[in-house]
Amino acid sequence: MNYDQIFDQAIDRLHEEGRYRVFIDIMRNKGAYPNARCFHGHNGPKPITVWCSNDYLAMGQHPKVIAAMEKALHDVGAGSGGTRNIGGNTHLHVELEAELADLHGKEAALLFTSGYVSNDATLSTLARLLPGCVIFSDELNHASMIAGIRNSGCEKRVFRHNDMAHLEELLAAEDEDCPKLIAFESVYSMDGDVAPLHEICDLAEKYNALTYIDEVHAVGMYGERGGGISERDDAARRIDIIEGTLGKAFGVMGGYVATNAKVIDCIRSYAPGFIFTTSLSPVLVAGVLAAVKHLKESSEERDAQQANAATLKAMMTEAGLPVMPSETHIVPLLVGDPVKAKRISDILLAEYGAYVQPINFPTVPRGTERLRFTPGPMHTDAMMRELTDALVEVWDRLELELRQAA
Amino acid sequence: MNYDQIFDQAIDRLHEEGRYRVFIDIMRNKGAYPNARCFHGHNGPKPITVWCSNDYLAMGQHPKVIAAMEKALHDVGAGSGGTRNIGGNTHLHVELEAELADLHGKEAALLFTSGYVSNDATLSTLARLLPGCVIFSDELNHASMIAGIRNSGCEKRVFRHNDMAHLEELLAAEDEDCPKLIAFESVYSMDGDVAPLHEICDLAEKYNALTYIDEVHAVGMYGERGGGISERDDAARRIDIIEGTLGKAFGVMGGYVATNAKVIDCIRSYAPGFIFTTSLSPVLVAGVLAAVKHLKESSEERDAQQANAATLKAMMTEAGLPVMPSETHIVPLLVGDPVKAKRISDILLAEYGAYVQPINFPTVPRGTERLRFTPGPMHTDAMMRELTDALVEVWDRLELELRQAA
Repeated sequence: MNYDQIFDQAIDRLHEEGRYRVFIDIMRNKGAYPNARCFHGHNGPKPITVWCSNDYLAMGQHPKVIAAMEKALHDVGAGSGGTRNIGGNTHLHVELEAELADLHGKEAALLFTSGYVSNDATLSTLARLLPGCVIFSDELNHASMIAGIRNSGCEKRVFRHNDMAHLEELLAAEDEDCPKLIAFESVYSMDGDVAPLHEICDLAEKYNALTYIDEVHAVGMYGERGGGISERDDAARRIDIIEGTLGKAFGVMGGYVATNAKVIDCIRSYAPGFIFTTSLSPVLVAGVLAAVKHLKESSEERDAQQANAATLKAMMTEAGLPVMPSETHIVPLLVGDPVKAKRISDILLAEYGAYVQPINFPTVPRGTERLRFTPGPMHTDAMMRELTDALVEVWDRLELELRQAA
Repeated sequence: MNYDQIFDQAIDRLHEEGRYRVFIDIMRNKGAYPNARCFHGHNGPKPITVWCSNDYLAMGQHPKVIAAMEKALHDVGAGSGGTRNIGGNTHLHVELEAELADLHGKEAALLFTSGYVSNDATLSTLARLLPGCVIFSDELNHASMIAGIRNSGCEKRVFRHNDMAHLEELLAAEDEDCPKLIAFESVYSMDGDVAPLHEICDLAEKYNALTYIDEVHAVGMYGERGGGISERDDAARRIDIIEGTLGKAFGVMGGYVATNAKVIDCIRSYAPGFIFTTSLSPVLVAGVLAAVKHLKESSEERDAQQANAATLKAMMTEAGLPVMPSETHIVPLLVGDPVKAKRISDILLAEYGAYVQPINFPTVPRGTERLRFTPGPMHTDAMMRELTDALVEVWDRLELELRQAA
């Protein structure tokens, strides 16, 4: 047994497929986001523009968020010092859970250390509590939902992406009396398309299934108060469990689920991934509280983000760049090859100071490798023009095809 | 299928067993830890002393930690805005990983959002990369290691707690050529006993097994530089993978593993729990950097903690309270019944302002329910005297047995 050899082979496979990941080492410039400093392969930091952040609304730099975190830092200190049950349950955690429950019109909410953990812990625990449960999972569900479903050990039926006929076919094939749960996302983050929430709820009601929605790429950004697509489409009341993140539009870190008080009590009491871990730092919790409260009242950031996403899509389409269809704030550009996607990204960073990561397998299916841009409220028209021009130059240089200019 | 009924039953089971958890809602007073405010069942906050925090060395309030976090907050903002691969890799993350690798004398380290996730993600990924791997797991291993082993889907052999003869028996029973990994902790947090590191390493060498140690209750607190029991016992060089937390003695939040560069490259590239999650907030990372650097140079906090733990054990023993044998900073007091453990905890909080959680199943085996005290460098002799007196009164009131006073 030669362990080194096995580990070497695992890394070699990634290099061969052109999907070995290099982490680009950056530091944002607070207050000047999307500007940042890049420490990658240069002598000292070099200024760049960030195009691939999930701090979608730049709330990670919002003065209210920063002030709340600074206050908490001085009021209670750096960490919580324990699990929620043993010493790590602060008043701030309790307040934020009430705020998130209210955001989604649910009875209660529960915080986790990340969105990944909230999906993994909640799905695996729910399914374990429901004997014989079958989970119906959209084929494009995020890795964390897949992990939760796999870790539950229950039966899984995968339905074709957003395909209601297929979902119904699978639901109808199960025993009427077996517990069922439909797990799906609202905004699919790599394509930017949206699930038909009411149609899913119709099927859930018809077949007596629970519904579980991942709104991590929607909370803060859609709905009057930032309650996500389920708020925008007035579907939150029909969905049993809403999961969200505190690390994207809310700008900080952490995850949560919102649902009825009974289910929260069960997850809180039975999920090892919730019970046996140090709770979120109160500093983070204070920052999120400020971000959620602000975005409940302000639509300015959401509106600016939508306007900029529309502008960038229009500029790229106009230039003949292969923008993928997206109904949301996400702007994916198809490359279709992992090595080329990486090469474009490298050139953009080194020569144009534009930072956008290549998105390769397993994040997206092979053959659909892409660049994924997330313009936010702080990106200017000039930045987007410069980016589009740079992309056209790189497309030319690498002899990639441009579409007929629109 | 009545979902509500199933969830009701799940909660009823906890009430029946007396292990329904109530989260005590507190806020620390920064700079005055272990003092805090309790919001639980009172009209407004009431002052308490915290006896069950895992912020073992009070680093969560250390001026260097607070200053570093404040600086990062103003320099780069609240959150990282992305995964390590997509926009969330800051210079601070890179620096902290180098610092942690150095702490353990390893080539590299990798940050996770929690100690739980570091165990779960690393163990499940390692075992999946090694075809046919068998994991040998101490029976008292933490829930997060158990989750990682289960989620790997590999074969598991559980050895009796710290029982080297049993471990060898299990190792010898496997095929010589199958990959093997021994997973264990250094300090077992609910009993305070320590694993025989060199004996485990001897067996690992004899049977060509990898070794994986969980040092979450030891890093920062043992060894010249806070490298844990593996540093204290000069065993780090013999152990393949060292896992630690940033949320206990380092006072903030997060987890990590340190090992050789090749294994880090594999985990970083293959672990979904690492890849698909927003990276630690740079604010937290900056705080941990300050804490790790400080504890590499200062033994003052470690020495004061050890002295106070010894004092508290002596006072309790002197008073005839059933202190469980512990070689470390952890001071467990046996109750042996979940309802009584909860009752004692409630009385201490309501009448004496002493906050210590009852530790019930599944955290400890049924019949060994206990109170677990973690005196730190900031607890005074007067506080410990007051606590011991309170415990004796409560023991009397509940007609629990005191040992012959020593």
